[in-house]
Amino acid sequence: MTDLKEGVCLSAFWYSHEQCCWTSNETTFEDRDKCPLWQKWSELLVNQSEGASAYILNYLMYILWALLFAFLAVSLVRVFAPYACGSGIPEIKTILSGFIIRGYLGKWTLLIKTVTLVLVVSSGLSLGKEGPLVHVACCCGNFFSSLFSKYSKNEGKRREVLSAAAAAGVSVAFGAPIGGVLFSLEEVSYYFPLKTLWRSFFAALVAAFTLRSINPFGNSRLVLFYVEYHTPWYMAELFPFILLGVFGGLWGTLFIRCNIAWCRRRKTTKLGKYPVLEVIVVTAITAISAYPNPYTRRSTSELISELFNDCGALESSQLCDYINDPNMTRPVDDIPDRPAGVGVYTAMWQLALALIFKIVITIFTFGMKIPSGLFIPSMAVGAMAGRMVGIGVEQLAYHHHDWIVFRNWCRPGADCVTPGLYAMVGAAACLGGVTRMTVSLVVIMFELTGGLEYIVPLMAAAVTSKWVADAFGKEGIYEAHIHLNGYPFLDVKDEFTHRTLATDVMRPRRGEPPLSVLTQDSMTVEDVETLIKETDYNGFPVVVSRDSERLIGFAQRRELILAIKNARQRQEGIVSNSIMYFTEEPPELPANSPHPLKLRRVLNLSPFTVTDHTPMETVVDIFRKLGLRQCLVTRSGRLLGIITKKDVLRHMAQMANQDPESIMFN
Amino acid sequence: MTDLKEGVCLSAFWYSHEQCCWTSNETTFEDRDKCPLWQKWSELLVNQSEGASAYILNYLMYILWALLFAFLAVSLVRVFAPYACGSGIPEIKTILSGFIIRGYLGKWTLLIKTVTLVLVVSSGLSLGKEGPLVHVACCCGNFFSSLFSKYSKNEGKRREVLSAAAAAGVSVAFGAPIGGVLFSLEEVSYYFPLKTLWRSFFAALVAAFTLRSINPFGNSRLVLFYVEYHTPWYMAELFPFILLGVFGGLWGTLFIRCNIAWCRRRKTTKLGKYPVLEVIVVTAITAISAYPNPYTRRSTSELISELFNDCGALESSQLCDYINDPNMTRPVDDIPDRPAGVGVYTAMWQLALALIFKIVITIFTFGMKIPSGLFIPSMAVGAMAGRMVGIGVEQLAYHHHDWIVFRNWCRPGADCVTPGLYAMVGAAACLGGVTRMTVSLVVIMFELTGGLEYIVPLMAAAVTSKWVADAFGKEGIYEAHIHLNGYPFLDVKDEFTHRTLATDVMRPRRGEPPLSVLTQDSMTVEDVETLIKETDYNGFPVVVSRDSERLIGFAQRRELILAIKNARQRQEGIVSNSIMYFTEEPPELPANSPHPLKLRRVLNLSPFTVTDHTPMETVVDIFRKLGLRQCLVTRSGRLLGIITKKDVLRHMAQMANQDPESIMFN
Repeated sequence: MTDLKEGVCLSAFWYSHEQCCWTSNETTFEDRDKCPLWQKWSELLVNQSEGASAYILNYLMYILWALLFAFLAVSLVRVFAPYACGSGIPEIKTILSGFIIRGYLGKWTLLIKTVTLVLVVSSGLSLGKEGPLVHVACCCGNFFSSLFSKYSKNEGKRREVLSAAAAAGVSVAFGAPIGGVLFSLEEVSYYFPLKTLWRSFFAALVAAFTLRSINPFGNSRLVLFYVEYHTPWYMAELFPFILLGVFGGLWGTLFIRCNIAWCRRRKTTKLGKYPVLEVIVVTAITAISAYPNPYTRRSTSELISELFNDCGALESSQLCDYINDPNMTRPVDDIPDRPAGVGVYTAMWQLALALIFKIVITIFTFGMKIPSGLFIPSMAVGAMAGRMVGIGVEQLAYHHHDWIVFRNWCRPGADCVTPGLYAMVGAAACLGGVTRMTVSLVVIMFELTGGLEYIVPLMAAAVTSKWVADAFGKEGIYEAHIHLNGYPFLDVKDEFTHRTLATDVMRPRRGEPPLSVLTQDSMTVEDVETLIKETDYNGFPVVVSRDSERLIGFAQRRELILAIKNARQRQEGIVSNSIMYFTEEPPELPANSPHPLKLRRVLNLSPFTVTDHTPMETVVDIFRKLGLRQCLVTRSGRLLGIITKKDVLRHMAQMANQDPESIMFN
Repeated sequence: MTDLKEGVCLSAFWYSHEQCCWTSNETTFEDRDKCPLWQKWSELLVNQSEGASAYILNYLMYILWALLFAFLAVSLVRVFAPYACGSGIPEIKTILSGFIIRGYLGKWTLLIKTVTLVLVVSSGLSLGKEGPLVHVACCCGNFFSSLFSKYSKNEGKRREVLSAAAAAGVSVAFGAPIGGVLFSLEEVSYYFPLKTLWRSFFAALVAAFTLRSINPFGNSRLVLFYVEYHTPWYMAELFPFILLGVFGGLWGTLFIRCNIAWCRRRKTTKLGKYPVLEVIVVTAITAISAYPNPYTRRSTSELISELFNDCGALESSQLCDYINDPNMTRPVDDIPDRPAGVGVYTAMWQLALALIFKIVITIFTFGMKIPSGLFIPSMAVGAMAGRMVGIGVEQLAYHHHDWIVFRNWCRPGADCVTPGLYAMVGAAACLGGVTRMTVSLVVIMFELTGGLEYIVPLMAAAVTSKWVADAFGKEGIYEAHIHLNGYPFLDVKDEFTHRTLATDVMRPRRGEPPLSVLTQDSMTVEDVETLIKETDYNGFPVVVSRDSERLIGFAQRRELILAIKNARQRQEGIVSNSIMYFTEEPPELPANSPHPLKLRRVLNLSPFTVTDHTPMETVVDIFRKLGLRQCLVTRSGRLLGIITKKDVLRHMAQMANQDPESIMFN
């Protein structure tokens, strides 16, 4: 569908340009791009392949197709599955931390996201399919776990399945099974026990194996951007690699700030009311600006692939237009550094323009109401910058063999600098700056490229990029979007080091009305029903009596309502002034009182408690590690108050000098 | 030192055979093994290089050197650092789970383990250096963290440093930085927050970078066993790969059972009293049996390297003695399958004998009082088995091109089967069977070999091997040794699914004397001192009074003793019948009573509590995730009992139908 924007295959319209020319027998190796079966729109419609009018016609068709695909996508999302937009990773992180967003992983989301993902990628917008594929995989995981009661009834087990699904999603998206497991561990999952590691590993194995069987790239390889470089890297090259890391970190910061500012504007102004129009406008701008530049016209993954590649002898790309030494006859593998030709200089200009365009347009694209991933655009930005730096270093080394930095490793006629490697390092740095991944980033990069030798440059760039980006703000793009949307997400990465105590955070605070509690054997059914009606708490602590306030358990609101309703319908003698009791034995009642109602069944006898003197550092730790939603506060057995997850989040925001009310939970 | 067993370099005795011949100018490529500067012992001592007497002399010298090295090693360990023996990984796991073994990570251990590791590896014993290097790295980590008060005073922080050190250790041992991080995560560390992941990653990066700068293998590569295969693998080959997985699982089970039985015998019988003699005997047997077989005589890592290698055109190894088709002139890279020659058949026999020898001797070697790792011997066993299977499949495919399984992918004259790949897969399977690693195993294997293409075969073998081994017993070798030594280690991998409650596990049990508690303001100094003298508990719960038993806090034994001692020495008026109080305000006392002693400072006001109705599943989870050592049990604020980590471990053993007393904590 991406190629439909440029032309059509006469033998079968669903063939891509490359597939179309495979089947054509008349094609020779040299002009594999030109085969009679593939016709540009201008050739098909007005029988012209060259000239200004043909160019304009092709340009228009390109824009038209892009608009068509984008319009279809955004309409489908709006009408059928509003949750199918975005990358989905912030929401999945939140879901895995214990929050429930109904329908987010539903069947409609699965279906619509799959279809629209194809449309938006084909429309040529500056977005990738990798993040959304994680969401799609989690929808599948959710669907399968709903088939087995072991998983559908236990939220914890279901989350383990989702963690494994996220791993499988990345495994398929990049052909990187181990990177997928690590991505799930580092970026997506909240609580990742070893058991889940091992299961995710298995899921990723099966995913990779299935992918290998389908063989989508037609080369028996799992990896998306396979590269083979012929020279090792040199110590002195670490300097430009670290520079690329700095660039990645700065780009990450810039992107996150601008994108969040734009998304906030979308949320708070009228802009948010016209999502379809927004998509149409951005698509039009993208298509209009992208077509004239060969580096933005093609699909982004093709671009990355070309940027990563080393210039072999058979490479016909403009980027490999070096001036060959006619006296040199060497084996094809080992081409020495050469001076750049005209093509390379042209390519540098075009790349620079493409880089600026990508940086700007990605900021506006990510966050629109269509499925959109960030991996590919970030990598493209990094790869373009990296390739340019690489060519620069290469030319510097060629023309200045005598400089001290080059003298040791770059003799004349040697192949010392591989610009493709710089592109790879740059891609890793930019991806790291945006997402703040470290280990999973390096693993994905070398699974993606097969470049195991270059682990130290990749690690150095990833570390630098994370440091630089962290210096300007701790949040990666996913955390920033979680914040923006106000999801109750307790980040495991932040350290809480303030010296506040549970008593400072718990409610009720000084002067507030006391906590709504149930007593174990002195409230009537009507009392409880009134309490339920007047409050909207999720549950109520149960104490021995209002005087002693000794805590005996916790009753969920939902279960209380259900139990009372059932009792009123089915149990005889239960009236409004029946006493409700949570003890084993019924309380002693006056002779003429109505039949009491036993509710011990709905009482959670092991609510989580801390004392009022517990440091908040410990409380935060307990909330994180045990995934609690609330926790009761006691002093020597007496109930003092309650701390909910939202209280903890508000307190953390307050301590970080943020406005606690900015964390609105919607 | 390994090569000293066979001969000596005349130009410099500390050169290895290979280094010696590098410096010799007279060597041509073909007989790089024969250079005049390198002399076998027989050549040097009696000027004979061939013949029976020369053979016997070399044989004797080989045994003598082996015995010398081993004797030196075991003596050093016995005299200076008894903790330097073994691989150290079980102990480090236990330390990271919160148990303290004093001196285990001390400076002497570091020094002696480093020196003796060199000696034992040179002695030719069936052991590897990789596990012990993790211990050495942790000793370094411990040493550095003792220099900074932030780390030396906080056990949690120190453990994070140790986790990172373990990652760096594996990173250096294998040249596998990411594998190191994952090994630390999967095998060594107990609690591994994301922060530690990122720091371990940095430690591993620096370790890999340093290793790269030193360039120990002289090939600018980080990896130990670099291989390059020229053919992809085929779907049908999954069957032998899975068979190798089964073999790995069986070997893992066999090894763990036999080794544990032998170690138990060593612990319980007289055998354990003569560690030096044991080492001498095992070394003698190893040297005597190893010398005649070329595959056991050389160092194990060289053997693995040869087994992993594909047979190129220049390969002079016996394993590559195929019958060449004289009509075939092909580029060196792409040698088709050929019939095996005499050398291959000889090699098969020798490999089979070496395999049996390695299997037997490793069982007796691991656990002796010398530093000994398991990675390399396990990999050697797997690589030998794998190579034999690989050659078998290769010959089968060559001679039976027409069989259905081969017909699709193995035409005559094609290079379809790579026996080296089978060796790699076998090595992964055996390592997996012994250690039960999954993700880290695959990552280490492909970092070790650069074989990214073969991730699916490696994963398939690792998964099969783990399944088969788990079917016979859930414990890996490290857990088995933890159990054998009775360390209090609460495994995070086991699931606890029984329906017992905290009340079933807590002490005191029914009929036992009540818990030793302190009251908040009614016990005298003497009462407390008596209590401390009569019991050996680590601490005491503090309650309001013996009647109400409402819990207010927990006091550590150590701090109590110290506080009372200080008060008696420095505070005036503190006598044996002074009242001790933990409240804010002193209790009201009769007029003539001595000055009371305020001890609120030593009171932990936020002890961890659960109710008696809490399911043990939750309690075990809390102990694991929060790393608790004890937990108090209450019911509506009244103290009922206490659960310690040992109680939890005993209960888990009981539930798993093991004798709880078998878990002796020594």
